Amino acid sequence: MSEKQKIYKPKAISGFPEWLPEERLVEQRWLDQIRAVFESHGFCSIETPSVEEIDVLLAKGEVDKEIYVLERLHKDEDDDGKEARLALHFDQTVPFARYTAQHFNDLVFPFKRYQMQRVWRGERPQMGRMREFTQCDIDVINVDNLPLQFDADVAAVAYEALEALNIGKVQLRISNRKILFGFLEANLVTSSEDIIFITRLLDKVEKIGESQALEELNKYILEKDTFSDKFSISEAFQGFLTLTRFSNSSELQSAVRELENLFSNLSENRTFKEGVEELCSILDSLSHLPPHAVIADLTIVRGLDYYTGTVYETQLLDVPEFVGSVCSGGRYYDLASQYINKKLPGVGISIGFSRLFDVIRQSRPDLLNIGPKSPADILIYTEEKDLSQDVAKTAQTLRKRGLKVESYHTVKKWDKHFKYAKAKQIPFIWYVKADGHEVKDMASGDQAKADPESWEKP
Amino acid sequence: MSEKQKIYKPKAISGFPEWLPEERLVEQRWLDQIRAVFESHGFCSIETPSVEEIDVLLAKGEVDKEIYVLERLHKDEDDDGKEARLALHFDQTVPFARYTAQHFNDLVFPFKRYQMQRVWRGERPQMGRMREFTQCDIDVINVDNLPLQFDADVAAVAYEALEALNIGKVQLRISNRKILFGFLEANLVTSSEDIIFITRLLDKVEKIGESQALEELNKYILEKDTFSDKFSISEAFQGFLTLTRFSNSSELQSAVRELENLFSNLSENRTFKEGVEELCSILDSLSHLPPHAVIADLTIVRGLDYYTGTVYETQLLDVPEFVGSVCSGGRYYDLASQYINKKLPGVGISIGFSRLFDVIRQSRPDLLNIGPKSPADILIYTEEKDLSQDVAKTAQTLRKRGLKVESYHTVKKWDKHFKYAKAKQIPFIWYVKADGHEVKDMASGDQAKADPESWEKP
Repeated sequence: MSEKQKIYKPKAISGFPEWLPEERLVEQRWLDQIRAVFESHGFCSIETPSVEEIDVLLAKGEVDKEIYVLERLHKDEDDDGKEARLALHFDQTVPFARYTAQHFNDLVFPFKRYQMQRVWRGERPQMGRMREFTQCDIDVINVDNLPLQFDADVAAVAYEALEALNIGKVQLRISNRKILFGFLEANLVTSSEDIIFITRLLDKVEKIGESQALEELNKYILEKDTFSDKFSISEAFQGFLTLTRFSNSSELQSAVRELENLFSNLSENRTFKEGVEELCSILDSLSHLPPHAVIADLTIVRGLDYYTGTVYETQLLDVPEFVGSVCSGGRYYDLASQYINKKLPGVGISIGFSRLFDVIRQSRPDLLNIGPKSPADILIYTEEKDLSQDVAKTAQTLRKRGLKVESYHTVKKWDKHFKYAKAKQIPFIWYVKADGHEVKDMASGDQAKADPESWEKP
Repeated sequence: MSEKQKIYKPKAISGFPEWLPEERLVEQRWLDQIRAVFESHGFCSIETPSVEEIDVLLAKGEVDKEIYVLERLHKDEDDDGKEARLALHFDQTVPFARYTAQHFNDLVFPFKRYQMQRVWRGERPQMGRMREFTQCDIDVINVDNLPLQFDADVAAVAYEALEALNIGKVQLRISNRKILFGFLEANLVTSSEDIIFITRLLDKVEKIGESQALEELNKYILEKDTFSDKFSISEAFQGFLTLTRFSNSSELQSAVRELENLFSNLSENRTFKEGVEELCSILDSLSHLPPHAVIADLTIVRGLDYYTGTVYETQLLDVPEFVGSVCSGGRYYDLASQYINKKLPGVGISIGFSRLFDVIRQSRPDLLNIGPKSPADILIYTEEKDLSQDVAKTAQTLRKRGLKVESYHTVKKWDKHFKYAKAKQIPFIWYVKADGHEVKDMASGDQAKADPESWEKP
């Protein structure tokens, strides 16, 4: 310790955020609130290791997410190739699928789980994206069949969880991919290449705007021979783009009737009909939520191939600074076909927690409501050294009564305990004195006699 | 989906444990209890990224822990060397030191933080050790000086946290390294090589036994020229080995007086005296805990060079299956000298949570008290399809009253809801019927009318 050491000045690592204690207190409260809502609906927690074997992560084929592989710093030469390569998981869906397959016989179905863990993406730091972040996921899966009501349940849970955070109005936008697929089928768009193109285009309309989307579509149509009536496809696409805001099933149904009048074959299309029925049923099941909470928006598609029915996105109506969907998901046909020979249909939703927290932290600190730097209700203190036993006992009494009590110790008399309580925003100072106890209320400045067995926060 | 897919049968990865939902429920409860105790003493939470720059992890020089380095799976050739190499942290002390240095100006001192995160050790899988595990750490640090009372506080918090888990009697064994160092000095052991040898030997007495330790010591003494009186060193070591069980400061003090009579110079040794005084003061401050909770054990040393005063270990008196210390720590002279030019003395303790949980899970499942596979209090269900709105509303009412309610949905009438509630150990089934609600108590089998606005668990 006598040698002068080299100072390595630490700095933040791009994409790996960390928070100050007062920010962390809010983050922790948010996570607790989300967890409480998940549990209030009977979802059980699971946690999986942070890593999976690389073959598990890639079982579905190459993924477009960037993956971090682990290497031991001091790897023995002769260990090479002996063990499976491990990589950090990039989402919680693959680990959940692997977990379900691995522990299948120990689980009770329908299996309702929540998972709130960190995930990693090996993004290049210059992208400015988070490379480590927390996701809050729920899923319900069952063997062979999963009742549609779970699609409504999952939406209600997501709404309640976000609503609990007090970040203004939350709106779920729901659709059903069968509606789009049936609509395209009825308009004679049947080649998978064309379906993928249009789905992808729809997915990015919000980003690129309607007119550019139409331009891209018309260019694509002109170059292709697959479209029998080039004009009608473009018209159909335009028509579909307007189907974005239905507050309940009757509004949706009358829009559908209009659509059926405009496009022949539509009323006979089984896929379209099924999608509309499912979506109406979900809207009906969610009618106990506030009017703004849920709308049907048929332009929601969520990616290309995973979801097979209901799809969800979520907007914060009072936080326009948050671009995109804060919570998304959908219904899938089969969770774990890569790992087990069982059909496991499911429905789930994922809150991108860290990004939500960080966007609000930066753009709407008023909603974060940053408070104290300590969880303590009380700072306990004595100026008389021989009363330190009394301090310990008094603190213990108060803690048993559910109060959070920090002890302030000092090397000299009249130390900075007051400044400390103020800086950490601890609301009360408890003075242990030879002639009795006194409590100072930091907000009002009042100080009064108090008994640890009966004192209550005013 | 029509193609036959290759099934990749998943298996556990050695050293990366995961638990079933019913085990996870207990793990989560334990973590909540530990956290509640930490917060009740005013410790605030921080979390750091899972990674640090490798230069930060190695700032103190090579570490004996195995480190996992991250590599991006699809690294671009030209990215090489451009960014700092990142590695998973192997403990929470290095990240805490780095965090404190980095955010120094935003923190209020004394800084009391807890941290409950996963850490990683790149052990070879054949070692059977955990490669990913959760630690629960608390530390108090201050600038320049940290009052000794915090050494007692930290011990009390650790005791309360473990005691809250209901795993039998918990015993902290406390010492002060100044006592050993002063004792060696008084016995003319002054070369750092000899001090390290004896400290290391003392550290492993519990593992190798007293007679083998003495044999190793005598062999070492014979080969060295540094010892003036070879016999007395061996005798002193033997004498020191007996100083293991003092319940309070007066017991300790009388043993110290005996020791001072046996070994000349001891009563004048300043380091020895300081160590004894500090330890006595801590024992006095902890006298409000139950008699078994704390003993002074002078043979506790905790590693070689980090701790400079108080050191702690913890035993589970009723769980002999747990070998070693479940919670350890100590006082250190300076936390972050590698990263900042400030003197930050501190004291801290770390609960090896995952190993504790796993040992008890395997060897004492009675203490784990595994219960339901769902957090739900109630499974709500209707046999009449047109009442599904009532189910949603009733569930919402019950949840607002703090009850955890799972909905059971079925595709056909008379489904397996009862079997499901039984398998998940959900204690009540709530039936929504056209002519009113009924609740079945799964334990007694009783079923009775109930009102969601007023029903209480019996």
